[in-house]
Amino acid sequence: MSTETSTETKTIAAVLFPGMTPVDLVGPLTALGMLEWLMPQYKVKVVAERMDAYQTDIPLRITPSHTFAQVPSPDVLLVPGGATPAFRAMADETLLDYLRGAAAQAEIITSVCSGSLLLGAAGLLKGREATTHWTVLDLLPEFGATPVRRRWVRDGDLLTAAGASAGIDMALHLVSMLEGDEVARLAQFGAEYDPEPPLGPLDWDAAPHELFAPAAESWVGDGLAGHPELRSRLLARLSAESRGFVEARR
Amino acid sequence: MSTETSTETKTIAAVLFPGMTPVDLVGPLTALGMLEWLMPQYKVKVVAERMDAYQTDIPLRITPSHTFAQVPSPDVLLVPGGATPAFRAMADETLLDYLRGAAAQAEIITSVCSGSLLLGAAGLLKGREATTHWTVLDLLPEFGATPVRRRWVRDGDLLTAAGASAGIDMALHLVSMLEGDEVARLAQFGAEYDPEPPLGPLDWDAAPHELFAPAAESWVGDGLAGHPELRSRLLARLSAESRGFVEARR
Repeated sequence: MSTETSTETKTIAAVLFPGMTPVDLVGPLTALGMLEWLMPQYKVKVVAERMDAYQTDIPLRITPSHTFAQVPSPDVLLVPGGATPAFRAMADETLLDYLRGAAAQAEIITSVCSGSLLLGAAGLLKGREATTHWTVLDLLPEFGATPVRRRWVRDGDLLTAAGASAGIDMALHLVSMLEGDEVARLAQFGAEYDPEPPLGPLDWDAAPHELFAPAAESWVGDGLAGHPELRSRLLARLSAESRGFVEARR
Repeated sequence: MSTETSTETKTIAAVLFPGMTPVDLVGPLTALGMLEWLMPQYKVKVVAERMDAYQTDIPLRITPSHTFAQVPSPDVLLVPGGATPAFRAMADETLLDYLRGAAAQAEIITSVCSGSLLLGAAGLLKGREATTHWTVLDLLPEFGATPVRRRWVRDGDLLTAAGASAGIDMALHLVSMLEGDEVARLAQFGAEYDPEPPLGPLDWDAAPHELFAPAAESWVGDGLAGHPELRSRLLARLSAESRGFVEARR
């Protein structure tokens, strides 16, 4: 909290695209909104191509605060994910151009869930360690990244989170990176983030691949229906992954 | 998962009001959206007075899927909270009327954060155990409720959650109540809810009352500026609470 950092405006841009998963955006923004409340030099903005009400994958629409054109050079970029719509977004050149332009200037580039695959589609993961939702982790090498199975993964200026709810953990770590643990602790109290999953932590040895492997195939297959080349490369990686699960269980 | 429950449509209505806290709504809907995906007899709807884009307390607006009038009798009611706007909503008779009408028919009534205080303002907490965001827990007796400091509190058909992020835990417990632990476990895998708060669990002995007690006073004071009688009763309870913190530290 030096005088220097406390006077300079820092813009955090969270990206919105059609059909995305709201918790990927809203979870981190809960922590980052607390950061803005505590340290008003931070300005959180939700950016999209247009000022429209975008349908999401739950029954609500989200309208951003700004357009891509209004926030070309944020200090922090946050990219959420989704199911089929995130794979559809991999062919959205306006979105990918925004990610490339913003990332070139940003101090820290973050993602939640399959948002890291969007960074990958934009060419921003080459040679980097990254994570994503557990069902699609094996797709990362297709974009030149090394997959790491952790709640969040930092590689230099790149901070990627695992699936959906992992964005909250990642954003609190981001607050620590930006302003230290004491500010992150206050943000954690504000969000009352003291988790108690009713059934305890996930038991990864019992992960329901039989339900989620076909689901992941449909996200890729449907989302990239118009892009057969990338579609078949990603599906091949998912098939290898599914075979791995089946063999591991024998 | 009896044949009876699997064929009957169950409507879950999540309430939207101006200025609310999105994670209170979006966190639970992440788990409940998984329930709908797994068991399509569940229909999740986001309801508000009008089909408008409502400003929230983070830089995005949310448009509901239905109006109050379209979903008068949901099977499950979910009420999110907020800061100042949640106290302002205590005087919104259209909202309170909706909560009373929906609650009279609902099988389960749920809330997140200060959403329980809205249930209280609607007269729905008399003689019940409940919880809310830690900063305003002592306001519950004003509405006839017994405050309980837990992540979520079940009292018959009433299921209230602590602040903000507690809605995720509460919603997974709700899925267990509705369809059993196995379905809740699948929803937990879908949301990859395997929390790892970077700084560990909250240390309640070090809760930052000096920051949040004045904040809570401003939420009540500003939100209920037009309702001096309720405002002064709630502020008196907060002052007693603040004095308690100060004394406890001596």
